Amino acid sequence: MLNRTYDTQICSIARALEVVGERWSLLLVRDASFGLRRFHQFQQSLGIARNILADRLHHLVDSGVLERVPAPDHADRFEYQLTAMGRELAPALIALMHWGDRYFAEHGPPRIAEHAGCGGELVEQLVCAKCAAVVDSDQVQTRPGPGLPAARPS
Amino acid sequence: MLNRTYDTQICSIARALEVVGERWSLLLVRDASFGLRRFHQFQQSLGIARNILADRLHHLVDSGVLERVPAPDHADRFEYQLTAMGRELAPALIALMHWGDRYFAEHGPPRIAEHAGCGGELVEQLVCAKCAAVVDSDQVQTRPGPGLPAARPS
Repeated sequence: MLNRTYDTQICSIARALEVVGERWSLLLVRDASFGLRRFHQFQQSLGIARNILADRLHHLVDSGVLERVPAPDHADRFEYQLTAMGRELAPALIALMHWGDRYFAEHGPPRIAEHAGCGGELVEQLVCAKCAAVVDSDQVQTRPGPGLPAARPS
Repeated sequence: MLNRTYDTQICSIARALEVVGERWSLLLVRDASFGLRRFHQFQQSLGIARNILADRLHHLVDSGVLERVPAPDHADRFEYQLTAMGRELAPALIALMHWGDRYFAEHGPPRIAEHAGCGGELVEQLVCAKCAAVVDSDQVQTRPGPGLPAARPS
C-alpha cells in the first residue's frame, strides 16, 4: 500500500505523496481540473486498465481529493469532481507543469495555465512573507518547524 | 521502466513525472535541497535498499536533476548535488509541502521553507502575467498550447 510507503518520513512532501504520489494519481487530478468527470473520460484520457483507474479514483475519494457526486442527468450514475482540497493542488501541478515545459517541451507548452476570465498566463512565484521579495529557487532554505519531533514541545 | 509509463501523454506534468515521479525520487530531490550529498546520507534519510537508492540516483543524474561530483576531501569518492534544473523543482516541492502542511500536519509543519538570509517564510503564489492579480486556485483554467499536436502548425 502506497499510503504506508513513506511512513517513517516526518515530512509534508511525503504525506502529500502518499495521497497523490501513486502512478497516474496526479494525472487524474490534472484531468479533473480540466473538467473530466466520468470514469470513461478518465479511462480514455489515461488509457489505463479499469481496475487501476478504479483503485486510484477510490484512493483519491477516500483521501478527500475527489468526491463522488450523482450525475446531473442520470441519478443512478456517478461522476467525480475535485474537492476544495483537490483544487488546492493547482499550484503544485502548475509548478510541475512549468518545470516540464522548461525542460521537455520542444514544441512549446502543450497546455497553458491561465487566469480564468482574464486569459493572462499564470506564473508561480515564491514570495517572502517578511520582506515581500520574489524569491528565486537559489534563495530557498528550510528550517525545522513545530511538527518535527525534536522541535516539538514535550 | 517508469520513463515510458506516461509515453502517450502529451503533457508537461507527465514528462516531469517521468523524471521525478518514481517512488522516493522527489524525496531524494528534497534531501539534496536540504544539503545531503553522500550515498549513505540519502540511505540514512530514506531507509531504502541500496539498489533502489542507486537506481533512483542514477536516473536523476541521467535526467540532469542531480550531478555526480568528486567529494572535496576524497578525490576517489563521489557526492551528488542538484543541478540548476534540479533546484528549479523548488516551487513544485514547496507547493506540495504546503499542501501537505495544510491537510496532514496535525502538529504544525515539520519544516518551514524560508527566504535565505532574510528568514521570512515563503508563500507560493500564482500571479497573472497580464493583470498582475494573485490568482486563487479556483480561478485557474487551461487552454491548449503550441506543443499540443492539434494546435501545432503543420
